[in-house]
Amino acid sequence: MPITQWENIYSKYSKIIFIIEIFKRGEGQVTKTSTDVLIVGGSAAGLSVANSTCVWYPDKKVTVVRNVPYTVVPCGIPYIYGTLNSVVKDKIPDEGYLDKGVNFIIGTVIDVDRNNKTAKLSDGSEISYEKLVIGTGSKPVMPPIKGINLKNVFPIEKDPDFLENLGATLEGIKDIVVIGGGFIGVEMAEQIKLKGDYNVTLLEALPRCLLAACEEEAGLKIEEQLEKLGVKVSTNKMAKSIVGTDKVEGVELATGEMLEADMVVLGIGAAPNVDLAEKIGLEVDKKMGIVVDEYMRTIDKDIFACGDCCTKFSIITGKPSAIRLASVATSEGLIVGSNLYSLNRKTRGAVGAFATRVGEVAVAAAGFTEKMANDNGCDYYLGEITAPDRHPGSLPGCTMETKVKLLFNKKNDRLIGGHVIGGFQAADMVNILALAIQQQVTADELAISQYATHPLLTGSPLVYQIMWAAENAIINKKK
Amino acid sequence: MPITQWENIYSKYSKIIFIIEIFKRGEGQVTKTSTDVLIVGGSAAGLSVANSTCVWYPDKKVTVVRNVPYTVVPCGIPYIYGTLNSVVKDKIPDEGYLDKGVNFIIGTVIDVDRNNKTAKLSDGSEISYEKLVIGTGSKPVMPPIKGINLKNVFPIEKDPDFLENLGATLEGIKDIVVIGGGFIGVEMAEQIKLKGDYNVTLLEALPRCLLAACEEEAGLKIEEQLEKLGVKVSTNKMAKSIVGTDKVEGVELATGEMLEADMVVLGIGAAPNVDLAEKIGLEVDKKMGIVVDEYMRTIDKDIFACGDCCTKFSIITGKPSAIRLASVATSEGLIVGSNLYSLNRKTRGAVGAFATRVGEVAVAAAGFTEKMANDNGCDYYLGEITAPDRHPGSLPGCTMETKVKLLFNKKNDRLIGGHVIGGFQAADMVNILALAIQQQVTADELAISQYATHPLLTGSPLVYQIMWAAENAIINKKK
Repeated sequence: MPITQWENIYSKYSKIIFIIEIFKRGEGQVTKTSTDVLIVGGSAAGLSVANSTCVWYPDKKVTVVRNVPYTVVPCGIPYIYGTLNSVVKDKIPDEGYLDKGVNFIIGTVIDVDRNNKTAKLSDGSEISYEKLVIGTGSKPVMPPIKGINLKNVFPIEKDPDFLENLGATLEGIKDIVVIGGGFIGVEMAEQIKLKGDYNVTLLEALPRCLLAACEEEAGLKIEEQLEKLGVKVSTNKMAKSIVGTDKVEGVELATGEMLEADMVVLGIGAAPNVDLAEKIGLEVDKKMGIVVDEYMRTIDKDIFACGDCCTKFSIITGKPSAIRLASVATSEGLIVGSNLYSLNRKTRGAVGAFATRVGEVAVAAAGFTEKMANDNGCDYYLGEITAPDRHPGSLPGCTMETKVKLLFNKKNDRLIGGHVIGGFQAADMVNILALAIQQQVTADELAISQYATHPLLTGSPLVYQIMWAAENAIINKKK
Repeated sequence: MPITQWENIYSKYSKIIFIIEIFKRGEGQVTKTSTDVLIVGGSAAGLSVANSTCVWYPDKKVTVVRNVPYTVVPCGIPYIYGTLNSVVKDKIPDEGYLDKGVNFIIGTVIDVDRNNKTAKLSDGSEISYEKLVIGTGSKPVMPPIKGINLKNVFPIEKDPDFLENLGATLEGIKDIVVIGGGFIGVEMAEQIKLKGDYNVTLLEALPRCLLAACEEEAGLKIEEQLEKLGVKVSTNKMAKSIVGTDKVEGVELATGEMLEADMVVLGIGAAPNVDLAEKIGLEVDKKMGIVVDEYMRTIDKDIFACGDCCTKFSIITGKPSAIRLASVATSEGLIVGSNLYSLNRKTRGAVGAFATRVGEVAVAAAGFTEKMANDNGCDYYLGEITAPDRHPGSLPGCTMETKVKLLFNKKNDRLIGGHVIGGFQAADMVNILALAIQQQVTADELAISQYATHPLLTGSPLVYQIMWAAENAIINKKK
């Protein structure tokens, strides 16, 4: 984006002091400037810290450095292709941040002098800080298979240019293989299929999609929706190599089977981006992220980290957790923002609260699945119920089979996992359960709680799913 | 409903022992039969007790006596007229209860011999019980104004015949006045207007609709939607009398103004139906209901009561509460069912969790409004935020202005009131807040909690409304 365009935007916010010099790059001069709070990374974690710092410390100057011209809604990326039909429509608007006085710098921090509290950018400019926050996010996991670097193999990056290129590549091709049946994989498969008449195949190594967060039955429902749309779902299938000379021509499976492919989309996970933190000597676990304490501080007490790039622990087990999720990042961002100049808050750990929608079905999950509980040696009991999500069920918009499944810790009766499968309120229903996990609510408390209901908006108060899944769990425990 | 028809239904459930003799009425013989649990009333409270008793005490015989041929969804009544276009479509199906072995008797309990634990029905039959549950609900409040007994003045009764009659009366008339701008009033006004080209006027004595549960701004949004549909909303207007000779012809306001009316719908509240309880010598507060303890027992330890007919207290203040709501009734029903033969649970008090939708707007509320907090002398602070309920906001189905407003107790930072105004997830969003009130969650806990988000289902994790309304409240308190 040319500097003049940025100046135009900034002139709209004339009351705010901007470090406009920083944009005068490429002119041979080393610009030196300063800020109070320097945030490296402008996605969910970084912007959340910016929001939070502005309300907790309104007198502090906040600067966000990001290596993209604008920030896309990360979870919105799949919807660029089949619904929004535009990358820029998936933008997080800067205006709200600029209004609060946040400065944005388009650039890359390549080094930090921790003694002098100064960051160095790739264009040679320098910026000094009082507090530094690292929110460098994650990098897509690239499986170590042959052909992974061929043209038209796309991991999911949050860079608008990259996303434009992915969209352009979709024009005029036919066969697409999506590797990985997690959230990003199923959503990309759906949206590409909605975009046009493609042959879309979704490969998942496990027996079901979404197993990293959801119960098998949720994965099954989503697979059914994908198949209804015409996506070919192949579970228990491992990609062995990607074949082609210059660009991808096919995907070879471990079974020997060969799938034709003009494009491969990779959705097999993300690893913390710890490059900068490692370079500047912070403590780093390459697999789990930049090591932070419960206040989200690194070993340098003036440097914080949050979001996908840093370590976390499970709120349920207290053990290290690899949950990397925008909602965890934004919660951590609020904690960091409040802690910068005074330690106000500790993280309680990652709960893992997910939701998606494919076709006519939404699924959502918080905390443990049965498998996770078993893998963690947690003795649990469960209750479930399926009921319409309107009352009477004859009302328009009703999903007759909306199911809630709850898992409780046998030792203390506290909720450790909640799953909703069915209508489109699944996300907000699971948020009742996400809060319940975080507040250590018991089966009995969930069962006798009162919940707002309305014919056009929810299930019946006689079978409100959360109430009765909890009640059924209590009865199951007594059996 | 003829006896043969009931026998046909029951023959479908041949494994269950039915007390079919009870149906052989009108033949001059006094039938005497017995049950373990006798429930008087077949609406939200009674059916909830039936459900709960069946899971807690599966060996007990459960009998529900109701004075209607079938139970309508009480909150669904307005939707009979403008959406379902049928009374019977608003039925709560008996099948689920029959499957569990619940017996239904169509009749009226007119007396109870507490010493011999026997109930007497209006047809002369008698039924003995081990435990009796009174769930006789409420009666519409009839304002003591002239003309209230004229033909075509309709309070809202839950009797199918009554509701059929209301619908039949709507055919061929033009001018309808709805008195009372609470939930039932606004919903009846909307649905009658949707049914046909009526002149519908909604009268509310207070300055805004829905003030008994919602903030003024919620009432305003609903009034705007009603007016968009063509309903005339007249607030600050009191009906002085209903005029007409045989049937209603108009409504005279306290101002002297006269409104033409072919029908008047009354929606000004409900009073506990304590007739039976009073007759059989239980302790009764005519205004607040049958007196129960925290286990929902009356002064007779083998007689319980729940739902609209009995006393309650506020979960926030501990003081007597007049909240009469299906979701309170069903929660109390679960408590009663579990307590019948062993005291398992205490009620925590009524929270008051409401939701409605009119036109394109849903509003929901849990706990206190600002006015209620002030009236109760509760020192509070608040936070609010308005943000889209999809992310990015350009996605289909987005309500750009979805607002959350939270009230916290200044003494202990606990949530005492939560309000959602905007998109159709309002009810489930407010249920996060209803649970938070019941679990005494603080502003800080709500702010740093993690919530599932998804582009097609919720607002952005960067501005998830509950998170940021709580964060803004914390900042407001510090100011």
